[in-house]
Amino acid sequence: MNVAIVGATGYGGIQAVNLLKDNKNYKITYLGGNKSSGSKWSENFPFINLESDIYIEEISVKSIANKANVALLCLPNGISSTITKGLLEKGIKVIDLSADYRYKSLEQWKRVYSNEAKKYKRDDDDLCQEAVYGLPEIYYSDISKARLIACPGCYPTSALIPLIPLLSQGIIDNEGIVIDSKSGTSGGGREPNQKLLFSECGDGLSAYGLINHRHTSEIEQIAGLIAGNDIELLFTPHLVPMTRGMHSTIYGRLRDPGLTSCDCRIILENFYRNFSNIKVLPVDIYPSTKWVRNTNEIHLSVKVDNRNGRIIILSVIDNLIKGQSGQAIQNLNIISGFPLNNGLDMINIYP
Amino acid sequence: MNVAIVGATGYGGIQAVNLLKDNKNYKITYLGGNKSSGSKWSENFPFINLESDIYIEEISVKSIANKANVALLCLPNGISSTITKGLLEKGIKVIDLSADYRYKSLEQWKRVYSNEAKKYKRDDDDLCQEAVYGLPEIYYSDISKARLIACPGCYPTSALIPLIPLLSQGIIDNEGIVIDSKSGTSGGGREPNQKLLFSECGDGLSAYGLINHRHTSEIEQIAGLIAGNDIELLFTPHLVPMTRGMHSTIYGRLRDPGLTSCDCRIILENFYRNFSNIKVLPVDIYPSTKWVRNTNEIHLSVKVDNRNGRIIILSVIDNLIKGQSGQAIQNLNIISGFPLNNGLDMINIYP
Amino acid sequence: MNVAIVGATGYGGIQAVNLLKDNKNYKITYLGGNKSSGSKWSENFPFINLESDIYIEEISVKSIANKANVALLCLPNGISSTITKGLLEKGIKVIDLSADYRYKSLEQWKRVYSNEAKKYKRDDDDLCQEAVYGLPEIYYSDISKARLIACPGCYPTSALIPLIPLLSQGIIDNEGIVIDSKSGTSGGGREPNQKLLFSECGDGLSAYGLINHRHTSEIEQIAGLIAGNDIELLFTPHLVPMTRGMHSTIYGRLRDPGLTSCDCRIILENFYRNFSNIKVLPVDIYPSTKWVRNTNEIHLSVKVDNRNGRIIILSVIDNLIKGQSGQAIQNLNIISGFPLNNGLDMINIYP
Amino acid sequence: MNVAIVGATGYGGIQAVNLLKDNKNYKITYLGGNKSSGSKWSENFPFINLESDIYIEEISVKSIANKANVALLCLPNGISSTITKGLLEKGIKVIDLSADYRYKSLEQWKRVYSNEAKKYKRDDDDLCQEAVYGLPEIYYSDISKARLIACPGCYPTSALIPLIPLLSQGIIDNEGIVIDSKSGTSGGGREPNQKLLFSECGDGLSAYGLINHRHTSEIEQIAGLIAGNDIELLFTPHLVPMTRGMHSTIYGRLRDPGLTSCDCRIILENFYRNFSNIKVLPVDIYPSTKWVRNTNEIHLSVKVDNRNGRIIILSVIDNLIKGQSGQAIQNLNIISGFPLNNGLDMINIYP
Repeated sequence: MNVAIVGATGYGGIQAVNLLKDNKNYKITYLGGNKSSGSKWSENFPFINLESDIYIEEISVKSIANKANVALLCLPNGISSTITKGLLEKGIKVIDLSADYRYKSLEQWKRVYSNEAKKYKRDDDDLCQEAVYGLPEIYYSDISKARLIACPGCYPTSALIPLIPLLSQGIIDNEGIVIDSKSGTSGGGREPNQKLLFSECGDGLSAYGLINHRHTSEIEQIAGLIAGNDIELLFTPHLVPMTRGMHSTIYGRLRDPGLTSCDCRIILENFYRNFSNIKVLPVDIYPSTKWVRNTNEIHLSVKVDNRNGRIIILSVIDNLIKGQSGQAIQNLNIISGFPLNNGLDMINIYP
Repeated sequence: MNVAIVGATGYGGIQAVNLLKDNKNYKITYLGGNKSSGSKWSENFPFINLESDIYIEEISVKSIANKANVALLCLPNGISSTITKGLLEKGIKVIDLSADYRYKSLEQWKRVYSNEAKKYKRDDDDLCQEAVYGLPEIYYSDISKARLIACPGCYPTSALIPLIPLLSQGIIDNEGIVIDSKSGTSGGGREPNQKLLFSECGDGLSAYGLINHRHTSEIEQIAGLIAGNDIELLFTPHLVPMTRGMHSTIYGRLRDPGLTSCDCRIILENFYRNFSNIKVLPVDIYPSTKWVRNTNEIHLSVKVDNRNGRIIILSVIDNLIKGQSGQAIQNLNIISGFPLNNGLDMINIYP
Repeated sequence: MNVAIVGATGYGGIQAVNLLKDNKNYKITYLGGNKSSGSKWSENFPFINLESDIYIEEISVKSIANKANVALLCLPNGISSTITKGLLEKGIKVIDLSADYRYKSLEQWKRVYSNEAKKYKRDDDDLCQEAVYGLPEIYYSDISKARLIACPGCYPTSALIPLIPLLSQGIIDNEGIVIDSKSGTSGGGREPNQKLLFSECGDGLSAYGLINHRHTSEIEQIAGLIAGNDIELLFTPHLVPMTRGMHSTIYGRLRDPGLTSCDCRIILENFYRNFSNIKVLPVDIYPSTKWVRNTNEIHLSVKVDNRNGRIIILSVIDNLIKGQSGQAIQNLNIISGFPLNNGLDMINIYP
Repeated sequence: MNVAIVGATGYGGIQAVNLLKDNKNYKITYLGGNKSSGSKWSENFPFINLESDIYIEEISVKSIANKANVALLCLPNGISSTITKGLLEKGIKVIDLSADYRYKSLEQWKRVYSNEAKKYKRDDDDLCQEAVYGLPEIYYSDISKARLIACPGCYPTSALIPLIPLLSQGIIDNEGIVIDSKSGTSGGGREPNQKLLFSECGDGLSAYGLINHRHTSEIEQIAGLIAGNDIELLFTPHLVPMTRGMHSTIYGRLRDPGLTSCDCRIILENFYRNFSNIKVLPVDIYPSTKWVRNTNEIHLSVKVDNRNGRIIILSVIDNLIKGQSGQAIQNLNIISGFPLNNGLDMINIYP
């Protein structure tokens, strides 16, 4: 498989290069990036050894289509929509890491991503409907037949993996779910940004995007589909002084307050028993984000308040791997016919 | 006022020294600490200029009583109870920063602090009942008459200040409250501890003490007293890779779902209008823990989900100041007849 | 004294506001900043309580002169030179925190700051010659008579304070001096900058500006003046994952190899015995940058290699205070007739 | 090859497990650790998947010899010497990561490691003389024939790799060399330690062990052997608020002051042209420690001050990999007949 990585110099693109460059099943044949176009990979990243050391090119449908069978779009929201139709028409499969095709309804996208909607005029409602939500442990079969995959956001990944087993089996109430998430700074990208300066966000923690964060609606869309009815939840993201890692603390109410922590643990474990990258920890073991750093794993832990049947679920991921490029490569593996976690068996880096 | 700082070489004690040393209203006349006893202050902390540079002494009721009118006990849980009765009998007022007198019931203390209860045999039920909970913006009047003050824990401070106005006025449901708190590492103290090594907790985040953290019952006790009936809530602490700072994200349900963010903001502001160290931020402004670092302030922000009447309140404090020694000094000011925030007008350190 | 802070929203300006706002000897009457002009202080910094809460204004000589007696210029290099002549002509004293007047020769400035020289056409050679180098512990007397003060850079401050006693008394060789400095990220400013993102510089350390860093020539100019002949030295700055703090490790060779660490310690201590903000630590006590964080102090430590008469001197400062705005306020105190360290007695923040 | 990892629960041991566990050429057959003996690996490290999940055992020569052909000793200084003789006698090859066999002279070890020498009575002078210094790019041939290998310390590794080409070819003066090194906290180990608490060493930097650090003599011993005469140098280690990474900034004087940065760069590159893990960067490119994090690489950069023929060389390593366990595995590869960097082709983790 010849793979194009479009938007190669952002954190998503760099991580994708790092994950694919020594994988014998794939060949990186195109790197796209407007600002750094014309320079070699090694000029930009002398410390990441890409053997072919190809040039980074201006982003164009034509050059991508000439060189690759599949394109990973690691682009800011809105831009993917300007090349996706063209790529699909030329028979290139598209794995989009942006939010452009995550909603079934283009209208909703325009509401939620209103600034981008002003800048990029879209009428590809058909593609929004066609696109498959790339959560591989849930939509494996749909993904395997898709030509356009919308990879989930990092927050939705960290929230949906633990919630889906509980919602789909009616274990918890649909109402009153709280998702309190904490993210490292790399989730904010590599563009210069005052708020993400070390001096600003180091040695401090803050919440942002209360109630209205864009990922709230993304989580609610999928959670609602799984539960079979509309879901309104509270989601609060926080910025944490660490580079990588995402931790979600999820609060809900058990429908059957007699369930124990062990019961709930088994429910999660059974649901994901075929997925080696999802690990449900023993009761009373709580993961650090460091446990999954540099891996494509997600670790879950569950605990019940026996007094009142409330449940807390913890999940940790590496936001740039399972939360972004690693998950994209799972999707790539599925559509390419390779095992789900092919090339994703990195060791974590501890300490 | 001659002040004894007992347990002077832990973070609480050091912070107390730093806050009191140049305050003309007080004189630090005794420093207690068993491990470092016999050495001068400057030998331990050459970078904190205590002009008198007195010796650190073995902890004993007699020497404290000889030298001071009031004692700040910055000691591990359980130890305070071994000297408090003696100090009170000699007419020394006691401001205890540990958990020893936070519960009205000694039985409850023994249940929650079971390890300490095994080590330190206590029968001072009377003192538990006598002690005043040292949350100065709430219990000012009781504190002013007290001879034994139990300073709140850092987590309870950060949770109760925002919750009390809403609970006392019946603004939110008593049921289903979620407190998701994030603390810097200094909350874990200065004793060597593998989990608090930079290599262990740096660049990662984890939850701990789910459901059963000791501060859950402390928060529930006071919240219940305020609300007038029993309260069960979910409280989850997280360890964040920063030294100072505590952020609590509190979720509840409005009894009147028609209230707006502005309404709720005004309720909080009115409640604390006489307290300059409590700042309620404009709607949509969310504080960083850095905003209160090195100060005795608490910043609050509130936001309502209009769809369903859910409310989110954010609070930030410096865990070693408003969460510990600064609050102790507020109590000291009250019992000494000085203005509440006397000597606590530090500038924050930004960035 | 009415003080204008020009460039109020960068780290230097913010720190100056924080240090002056509650000082009864000064009144901040003007805040200048082009990007944020038209907004109130509190809109920009809700967490720093400036009681007057004045508006930030477009930078203009006229408004500054109308409102203030003295101007602190916290501006990027080159811009100060566009308003300094105008301010001086209107009788406003100028304390410039940029590099514009640090060299006696305008030609040298144009060589070293060649990019700025292209953008800002300067012919104020006379002002370069007139300006006094604002290292208050060394040039106190000249500063007291000056109307234009060029505050030293942070690296030169951290290197010159320890070197000057040794160079002026001929204790060390002029040749072969090595200055290895480590700075926190706030030295790089508050403008968005990819290299200073938490994700980029967190959890890593790197050197920059080898041989040619601009501060090399600034250090060499003053060191040469003090020593009485030209000095060429090696200076290497490093970026450290911490917000504040600067540590310089200085290596030299004793002219008299029989001197001990104690001897050298006494030489430093005697030289600065009148300056309470300069602390020479006991031999074998090595400071952390945290020891001076949030203070205007500089801590020094010295150690001799008895085998061969080599000497190592350590210095630590808070780069935004003694390295920048605190030092500017020392200069302001001198020209205003107040004690050198008036308003600069902050407690350090530890831990 | 059956490998014993002795001292498996310190950072060196954990890293060794992580690097070896999926290497098909080796099998980890023994894990030793006194404190955690009797527990399974997964009980200690649920986030590091060791498939065999063997028990950690009390450290004993007999059990090691029963289970393994070669032992990696990741033990505190002094302890290795208590089992090495026994292991060698049973035919087990020993790769020691401690300092016990780094000096040719046991006397010198006793002088430098005087505390350990009091605790562990040694008379294995013969083994000190026999042991090969395990710097694989320099002593490959000796290592290949050795049964006892003393792995270099992390600081010596980061200093000697850049210095050896210059010293062995007489490019720089033997005199006046300065090594200013900066290390992440993991170099201090995993034992509880107040100085290494996040609250203590976070957001600050300090030097330690001036003049007398133990690694000074280790560097001097090897540098002297290479140069052919005694070398006295200045080495100053600094503790940096990052978990992994080591940066050495090395200052020297060129014997031929006409050499350029390019010339020196080529000298280094030629010297190490057969070692893919040693990368000499282009002139004016300065590495961050992050560039080699999670890899066994060392990156070098060199710059000459044309004015006076001084030279600065930068080196960066991951202190736990090339500075410790990765280097041990290079040694293991050599004595086992595998390619030098077998199993050490990890991707770096960026950002």
